[in-house]
Amino acid sequence: MGINIPNFLSSKSKNRKMIDFQDLDHLDGLSISAVSANLYNSNRDDLVMFYFRDGANHASIYTQSKILSENIKWNLSQKPKKIYSLVVNTRNANSFTGEQGFKSLQNIADTISKELNEKQKNDEENPVKIKPKNILFGCTGTIGETFPFEKINSKIPDLIKNIKYTQNKLIWMKAALGIMTTDTRPKMAMEECFIGKTLVKIYGIAKGSGMISPNMATTLGYIFTDADLPNDILKKLLKKNIENTFNAISCDGDTSTNDMVTIFSTGKTNHIKINSFTDKRLNDFDQSLNKVLLNLAKRIVADGEGATKFITINVFDTKSELDAKKIAFSIANSPLVKTAISGEDPNWGRVIMAIGKSDTQIIVNKLSIRFGNINVVHKGKLHNSYNETDAAQYMKNADIEINVNVGTGNKNFTVYTMDFTKKYIEINADYRS
Amino acid sequence: MGINIPNFLSSKSKNRKMIDFQDLDHLDGLSISAVSANLYNSNRDDLVMFYFRDGANHASIYTQSKILSENIKWNLSQKPKKIYSLVVNTRNANSFTGEQGFKSLQNIADTISKELNEKQKNDEENPVKIKPKNILFGCTGTIGETFPFEKINSKIPDLIKNIKYTQNKLIWMKAALGIMTTDTRPKMAMEECFIGKTLVKIYGIAKGSGMISPNMATTLGYIFTDADLPNDILKKLLKKNIENTFNAISCDGDTSTNDMVTIFSTGKTNHIKINSFTDKRLNDFDQSLNKVLLNLAKRIVADGEGATKFITINVFDTKSELDAKKIAFSIANSPLVKTAISGEDPNWGRVIMAIGKSDTQIIVNKLSIRFGNINVVHKGKLHNSYNETDAAQYMKNADIEINVNVGTGNKNFTVYTMDFTKKYIEINADYRS
Repeated sequence: MGINIPNFLSSKSKNRKMIDFQDLDHLDGLSISAVSANLYNSNRDDLVMFYFRDGANHASIYTQSKILSENIKWNLSQKPKKIYSLVVNTRNANSFTGEQGFKSLQNIADTISKELNEKQKNDEENPVKIKPKNILFGCTGTIGETFPFEKINSKIPDLIKNIKYTQNKLIWMKAALGIMTTDTRPKMAMEECFIGKTLVKIYGIAKGSGMISPNMATTLGYIFTDADLPNDILKKLLKKNIENTFNAISCDGDTSTNDMVTIFSTGKTNHIKINSFTDKRLNDFDQSLNKVLLNLAKRIVADGEGATKFITINVFDTKSELDAKKIAFSIANSPLVKTAISGEDPNWGRVIMAIGKSDTQIIVNKLSIRFGNINVVHKGKLHNSYNETDAAQYMKNADIEINVNVGTGNKNFTVYTMDFTKKYIEINADYRS
Repeated sequence: MGINIPNFLSSKSKNRKMIDFQDLDHLDGLSISAVSANLYNSNRDDLVMFYFRDGANHASIYTQSKILSENIKWNLSQKPKKIYSLVVNTRNANSFTGEQGFKSLQNIADTISKELNEKQKNDEENPVKIKPKNILFGCTGTIGETFPFEKINSKIPDLIKNIKYTQNKLIWMKAALGIMTTDTRPKMAMEECFIGKTLVKIYGIAKGSGMISPNMATTLGYIFTDADLPNDILKKLLKKNIENTFNAISCDGDTSTNDMVTIFSTGKTNHIKINSFTDKRLNDFDQSLNKVLLNLAKRIVADGEGATKFITINVFDTKSELDAKKIAFSIANSPLVKTAISGEDPNWGRVIMAIGKSDTQIIVNKLSIRFGNINVVHKGKLHNSYNETDAAQYMKNADIEINVNVGTGNKNFTVYTMDFTKKYIEINADYRS
C-alpha cells in the first residue's frame, strides 16, 4: 500500500501554506485525455494523451541502459522544435520488440498527427500542421512481448475525442492513474513560482514502482509548465535538477530500458523573456522545479514495491560529491541493510559493511553514524550514549534517516530508498504469471 | 534448507569415481579441535582450532572492504613464516570493536601460544617455540558487538585438550559445523592429485550464507594440503584460482569486513621439490585446487540464505573478460532477475534489462540468450522456436543455467548465484532479534 510520509508537500503560490493534497488544476496550453485500450484485459485506463494545441517547448532525459526500448529510440530519432502530443501506454514496454515495435509507433504517430490535424482544421487560431515527428511516446510494462499495435492504434480516435481542454483535479488523477503499472498510488506534485512578477505553474506526474534505481529505472516523469522557456534552457534545468532528485532514488538497484523524464513548456504565461540559463530571475523557477521533481521522486520511492519504510540516507563531509554518492547508494542498494530496516532492527553493523564496500577511502576513526538524532557511531567507536532499546524504538518509525559523517571533506549527497520486504519478492516473483 | 545439486562432486585420486559424499580423512601435520564457548548461549560448537604441530606454510586472501575486522587486521599485521594454529569463532565478527577487539586477539594469541608450548614441551620431536604471531584468526557473525574475550579465552585450554591428532570424517564435520553462522549445511570438499609421482591431498571447508558477493563476502574458506609448497607459490596459486571460484559467486551483492580464504601446506608428503609457480609438475595440483575452491564456492551459493534455485550464468564471446564479468554479475545481482527465477518465470526481459545496465558495449543484433538449451533470443530477436511453455517448464528445475552470447569477442566468464526468496527477507530481517 505504500507509505504515508508527511514530507511530500507542495506549495501553492509563495504566500500560501504547504499542502499535501496535490491540487493540480488547469494549465494553459495543455489538454489531457485517457482511455482504456484493454491492454490489461480490464477496463482500467492504460493509454494517456497529453495534447499541446499550440505546441510546447520540451527537453527529455532518457535511460542510461545500453539497451533502449523502441519508444526511446523513436523519441531520440525525431528532433522536433515543438511537441504537440505525448502519448503514454502501460502494460507493454515496447522493448526488445525490434522493427515491429518501432514501426508500430511510426504508424501510431501517423494516425495521431492525421487525427489531430483533422480536429484542428476548423480551428482558425491553430493552422499548424502536426507531423508524426511532433509526437513523443512513453511506454512501460513487460519487456519483450509483441507491441499491441492494433489495440492502441484503434483507440486513437477515442483518445482524441475525449480530450479535455480544461484540466481539473480529476483529469490529472485520471492521467496519473493511467500511466501506472504495479504502482499502488498515482503520483502528482505541483509548485507555483514567479518568473519576474509573473506567477507560473509547474505540475508533474510520475510512475515508478519496480526497478527504481539511480538513473531513473522504469520511471516515467512528466513535468508541465505554462512558463515560456526555450528548449536549451529547459534541457539545462532538467539535467541539473534530475541529479539530486530522480537520480538520487533507488528501490532495488535495477534499471529499465524505458526511463524517461520530460519537461514541457506551453509558453502561455506572459513573463519577462529569459534568454539565459544563468539569469537570476530563473532562480525561483529552478528551485521550484527541483521541489516538484524531488516530491515525485520521493513518492516513487515511498510506493516502491512492497515498501513499508521510507529511508533517507544523508552522507556528509566527503572529499567529493561522487564519494558521498557512492557511499549513499552502497547503503541504499544493500539488501542486508534494507532487510534489517524492514525487520526494524538497528543493525548498524550492516551500514558499516555497506560503507566499507563502497569503493571510497574511509578513515575509520573519523566516521560517525546517526540514526535520526540517535548517535550510534562517533569517530569510529560506538557512541557512549548508544543504547539499543532507543535505537530499536526509532526503527519503528515509517520514516527512517541514516546519517553518515565521513569527516574527510565538505561534500554531501542524499539518497532516498525503501526497505526490502517479503512483499517485494511476492510482487516480483509473480508479476507476469 | 539449501538446494541439492548433483554437480558438486569431488574425485578421490585420479582413477576413482566421482563422489558426492566428501570423504575427508586424515591429513598429516594437521590436528583439529572444536568446542562450545557458549557464544550462541547454546551448546553448539562455535570455536574451532586447526593445529599444525610442525607449522604450516600458508597464504591468505582477505576482504576488499575498506573497513577491516580486527582479526583481519591482526592477520595482516603478523608476518610469520609458518602458522601453528588457526582459530575460528562464530557469532561475533570482531568488526568495529576497535582496541577491545584487537587486544582480545592479542591476549588470546598469548594464551594459545603459551598453552601449545606447554603441550609440546615434552615432545622431543617438536622443540619449536610457538609465538603469538604464529596464530591466525577467523571471525564471523554480527558486526559491532563487544568481542566476547572472556568466553573465548577461558575455553582455550579445553580446545587444546580436545585436539584430535588423527582426523576422520567426524572431526572434519565437527569443524565445518563449528564455523557456520546462518548456514544450514556444513561445506566440505576434497581432491587428491599428484605432484610428480606423489599423491597429495587437498581438503577444504567453508562457511557462507549471507552477504556472499564478488570478492568473497562473509566467506571463510580454509584449504589444507599435505603438499610441501613455499608461501610465495601458495599465494600465487590461491590468487589465480580464487578469481573464477570464490570471486565468481554472488548471493546478494553485499560484502563483509571479515572475508578470508587461507591455504595451509603441512609439507608432510615427500614429493619432488617445486621451486617455481610455472613448474608444469604443479598443473595437476593447480587444477585440483581450483576444483576444491569451486566446489566450496558452489556449496556456499546453494546454501545462500533462502535459496531454492542454483543459478549458473555463463557469458560468452565478449571483448574482454572484464566485460563478461560485468554482464554476468549484473544479471546475478539483479533482484528482479533473482525474484523472477524464484517465481519460476522465464522472464527473459529482465535478463535483457540486467545486460543493458551492465555498463558494457552491447550490439543488440549480435546478442543471443539461452536458458539451458532453450533458445530464447537469437541475434537480437526472439528465437523463432521459442515458446513460453517449454521455457516455463525449464524454470521448474532447481539448477538453472542462463547463457548469454554477446558476440563481440572471444572472452568468457561464469558466475554462480541463487534466487531471491521471501525466506531471504525473513532470515535477514530477523537475524539479530
